Amino acid sequence: MEIKGFKFSAVEAAIKKPGRLDLALIFSEVPAAVAGVYTTNKVKAAPVLVDMARTKYGLCQAIVVNSGNANACTGGQGMDDALTTTRLVAEGLGIPDEATLVASTGVIGVPMPMERLRPRIPALIEGLEGGTLEDVAEAIMTTDTFPKLAIRSGEAGGKRYTLAGVAKGAGMIMPNMATMLAFLVTDAAVDPAWLQRVFREGVDLSFNMISVDGDTSTNDTALVMANGAAGNQPLTAGDPDAERFVRLLRGLLLSLAKQIVRDGEGATKFVEINVRGARSNAEARQAAMAVANSCLVKTAFFGQDANWGRILAAVGYSGANIDPYRVELSFDDVRMVRNGIFAGGDAEARGTEVLKKREFSVTVNLWMGEGEATVFTSDLSYDYVKINADYRT
Amino acid sequence: MEIKGFKFSAVEAAIKKPGRLDLALIFSEVPAAVAGVYTTNKVKAAPVLVDMARTKYGLCQAIVVNSGNANACTGGQGMDDALTTTRLVAEGLGIPDEATLVASTGVIGVPMPMERLRPRIPALIEGLEGGTLEDVAEAIMTTDTFPKLAIRSGEAGGKRYTLAGVAKGAGMIMPNMATMLAFLVTDAAVDPAWLQRVFREGVDLSFNMISVDGDTSTNDTALVMANGAAGNQPLTAGDPDAERFVRLLRGLLLSLAKQIVRDGEGATKFVEINVRGARSNAEARQAAMAVANSCLVKTAFFGQDANWGRILAAVGYSGANIDPYRVELSFDDVRMVRNGIFAGGDAEARGTEVLKKREFSVTVNLWMGEGEATVFTSDLSYDYVKINADYRT
Repeated sequence: MEIKGFKFSAVEAAIKKPGRLDLALIFSEVPAAVAGVYTTNKVKAAPVLVDMARTKYGLCQAIVVNSGNANACTGGQGMDDALTTTRLVAEGLGIPDEATLVASTGVIGVPMPMERLRPRIPALIEGLEGGTLEDVAEAIMTTDTFPKLAIRSGEAGGKRYTLAGVAKGAGMIMPNMATMLAFLVTDAAVDPAWLQRVFREGVDLSFNMISVDGDTSTNDTALVMANGAAGNQPLTAGDPDAERFVRLLRGLLLSLAKQIVRDGEGATKFVEINVRGARSNAEARQAAMAVANSCLVKTAFFGQDANWGRILAAVGYSGANIDPYRVELSFDDVRMVRNGIFAGGDAEARGTEVLKKREFSVTVNLWMGEGEATVFTSDLSYDYVKINADYRT
Repeated sequence: MEIKGFKFSAVEAAIKKPGRLDLALIFSEVPAAVAGVYTTNKVKAAPVLVDMARTKYGLCQAIVVNSGNANACTGGQGMDDALTTTRLVAEGLGIPDEATLVASTGVIGVPMPMERLRPRIPALIEGLEGGTLEDVAEAIMTTDTFPKLAIRSGEAGGKRYTLAGVAKGAGMIMPNMATMLAFLVTDAAVDPAWLQRVFREGVDLSFNMISVDGDTSTNDTALVMANGAAGNQPLTAGDPDAERFVRLLRGLLLSLAKQIVRDGEGATKFVEINVRGARSNAEARQAAMAVANSCLVKTAFFGQDANWGRILAAVGYSGANIDPYRVELSFDDVRMVRNGIFAGGDAEARGTEVLKKREFSVTVNLWMGEGEATVFTSDLSYDYVKINADYRT
């Protein structure tokens, strides 16, 4: 896969366990429009603070990423380390320091091992000659079991362009960004301010609609770079080709988001939670998220138990307006609940069959209005507990 | 243990698995002042709706409780069943139907097996002659591994009185009441309106300060009956003995609340989360609850991992105002974090020793103000997942 004007690289720096790629670089030969969306956690890791300041200008040229260490809760030393990293990369590439972004994921509260990272930067830059975006996808993995990658192509003003992205994130996934990193690149030309707007909207409809465990990380970062190498006129609002770009962007973000849920720590199920008929979209999302984050609902999914009562209970405490005597609930197309009570017949047996599937949907209709939302989640298994109980050891 | 003028009974009605007490009765020989606090879930079980209406009068004489079936999401039939149950009990006791309350806990969405419950009511009433409050504590258990009971005695106007209570609730425990039932009885005379106020406050400081899994049930009910058999003048605001009653009441509620957390489904740890120095008590509670409900924090407790970074992350997304560079964190008396970063020295080794204990505290000081809160929680273990994955099967 080639995205014009972009180069990629990944090396081992022994920040993670030895023998695994853990330091990656994305480089655009020319300055690119950039947009970023970051964690809402008040405890923000040093690299997040750096990028928030630098993406305000709307242009950047490189992103350096490491896994194995989050550089979070590391104080002034952590900020120094993040800035040293971007400076060394910028010097090596011959670009301005301010055009270089940085992202980190891994253990919180441990100083970045600069003595191991620093000497690998020359090799990282040399690697740009032969590296691929797949290498980047692999280098950013932590507890992920597979690399997450998506690609789309489109046309703007008669010019073909490519839009590609990588992401990581397995646990600690929850709306408002989790330890979730995503980097998108496109050779389309895109107006920076418009890019920021449509990227934010796309993230809200994808990464902010997934939940693995309800925790919001200190390091979440989603970045998109658009370098214009395709040669089109910059896409912006009102442009006839802009709508198609937005569609491609949203599709790509949703694909990455779903890959993250499929790879949820210990996940054995992939579940789509649809809430319809809420007073508003916001209330629909509130209800869907309460269901997606309920430990009781998620363990029932793991146990393949068609326990619709726990789902109604979660909707009930979500804060969304409901009338308990109107609610409907289905597993796939099996109606389990009508008017707030069990639908009867063979629903129990048929619902149990649905729960045995690897992927299924839960649809709740509140019959209160027109609000809708779809959230993607996984189950809560023994392995989730195991992975997270043993994470640092 | 005797509480003057109260009688207790419990029988088997095969609502739960055979061979276990599952139907209980609390009876006061004279009408008693009553106060109730109920689930905030919008999906309320039928017995909750009945009791909410009936406790408004401030007087009651009997509470009939079953375990094994929650009578929730059971529609009009569920309401009929709850009312039939109170009517049969009231008839048998020769008291007004409106003076009889009902509570249920167990599986949601399954009709109450009235054909098994109904014929056991005569035996339940006969059992009042030889029954004890311990029998009630046992009969209301679901996944609880031990009965929860507490007792206090005090004096008002020169008269000795007793205050006793039972509770159940192991999973699905979370502020704003969870599948948590609690029944308190006292032979003190207490003004009904004042009783409602101090009971509500006591519940806010106890049952609403514990969390096992963050789920709020459809059935939570806490009731207190005060029948005045001790012969004191009714306690009310301003009374010199009233303060002592409040202290006893709060102590008893907190004891029951802690017993519930100790018996959290699959719990291997009992953890006290203290947040100090918040902008307000409400923000302190918000931060403490975010920590107590974080799956990542709870699995780290289970893994005996002194992963303070996850705790800071939870405080960071809790919504409480914080300055990441001021936060302090300790496990028991081991300072792990100072000014938002690792405190250094031998903190890691000493903190890990604390986490190996069965009970320990986490104290977070935000240094933003005077707000404080203490929340009690358990860890998240394999057994939590097992218990809840297999609950209905």
